Amino acid sequence: MPGSQDAPIDFYIDFSSPYGYLAGHGIDEIAEKHGREVMWRPFLLGVVFAITGQSPLTSQPMRGAYALHDFQRSARAINIPFVMPDPFPVLTLAAGRAYYWLHDRDPDMAKRFAKSVYHRMFGEGGDISKPAAIVAIAEACGADGAELADALTDPAIKERLKAETQAAIDRGVFGSPFTIVDGEPFWGADRLEQVDKWLGCGGW
Amino acid sequence: MPGSQDAPIDFYIDFSSPYGYLAGHGIDEIAEKHGREVMWRPFLLGVVFAITGQSPLTSQPMRGAYALHDFQRSARAINIPFVMPDPFPVLTLAAGRAYYWLHDRDPDMAKRFAKSVYHRMFGEGGDISKPAAIVAIAEACGADGAELADALTDPAIKERLKAETQAAIDRGVFGSPFTIVDGEPFWGADRLEQVDKWLGCGGW
Repeated sequence: MPGSQDAPIDFYIDFSSPYGYLAGHGIDEIAEKHGREVMWRPFLLGVVFAITGQSPLTSQPMRGAYALHDFQRSARAINIPFVMPDPFPVLTLAAGRAYYWLHDRDPDMAKRFAKSVYHRMFGEGGDISKPAAIVAIAEACGADGAELADALTDPAIKERLKAETQAAIDRGVFGSPFTIVDGEPFWGADRLEQVDKWLGCGGW
Repeated sequence: MPGSQDAPIDFYIDFSSPYGYLAGHGIDEIAEKHGREVMWRPFLLGVVFAITGQSPLTSQPMRGAYALHDFQRSARAINIPFVMPDPFPVLTLAAGRAYYWLHDRDPDMAKRFAKSVYHRMFGEGGDISKPAAIVAIAEACGADGAELADALTDPAIKERLKAETQAAIDRGVFGSPFTIVDGEPFWGADRLEQVDKWLGCGGW
């Protein structure tokens, strides 16, 4: 598949995705082991669900109860906290917009922000849907809160998240997390092992 | 969760499930490492889909194309052949009925039969939907083909597969493969690692 080893690994997530949170602990460490960078790329999973006909796993008959159990068990397996947020799922528009606004200014801060959003939502069970919550998290990461609060209602940043979501769809991204390594797609937190192996040997 | 370590590990599969085929290479080896037995339990995934609202992965927008790629890549990762059958998916009534008929007579032969059915379908891309194909596979495993051919139309064996499918649903089985270890449920070929870990330490 096409790709350049100079390009970062693309790590597509929705901030309301428990498995995105799980994989968010691990993806950067795996990449670093192989001397690679990771670009986190938040997108709106709800837009994708409208195409695939899927719905949030937790609201599906039979699958929902298992998923709630599996989130907890999989978090314990890698020794990270997991608190199921209520309400769930939530809108992640503010989080996604803030991420790209921060990324254009300071990519390292944007990644710290993304990890903080996930920690607030699934490490502590918090509600990250409101702009005020997002601004507070960004401020704690060192951002100018007032400037960000203004930016969140800017049509340009709204358009940006839409465009990023469409670009994800155009690349075949249909779930979260979804990792693309040099053109090779890996869906799910349970594909991190294959991502690691792929980075190590360039495919098989 | 409830369970007894004397009871076998239950390995629920539909014979038309690519990830069931993948996990079928591994589950018995993992169990053996921990001194445990595995009972393969074919069921009808179509009946479960009617409850969960799911459909075969390969026929879903976006997810289908990825799945076809992932089957091949995951098979290569564990060095087993994979040939996507055409037609797909197929009815697995005959295979499931034959399995339980064989199991009541010779559990070891039934397991060899199950593995042969999977090999024919996904190792060679064959069609295992027809009773004649199933009888031929069972004969190669040492079964009496004429007796089995008669049994496949017996209302009792039809009822048996129905009852096994309902029992699977009652235990929360909603996909294939679905492994239950001492009451603990694991969905997917990508949960074999957790199954291994669970067997090793009794949970976490």
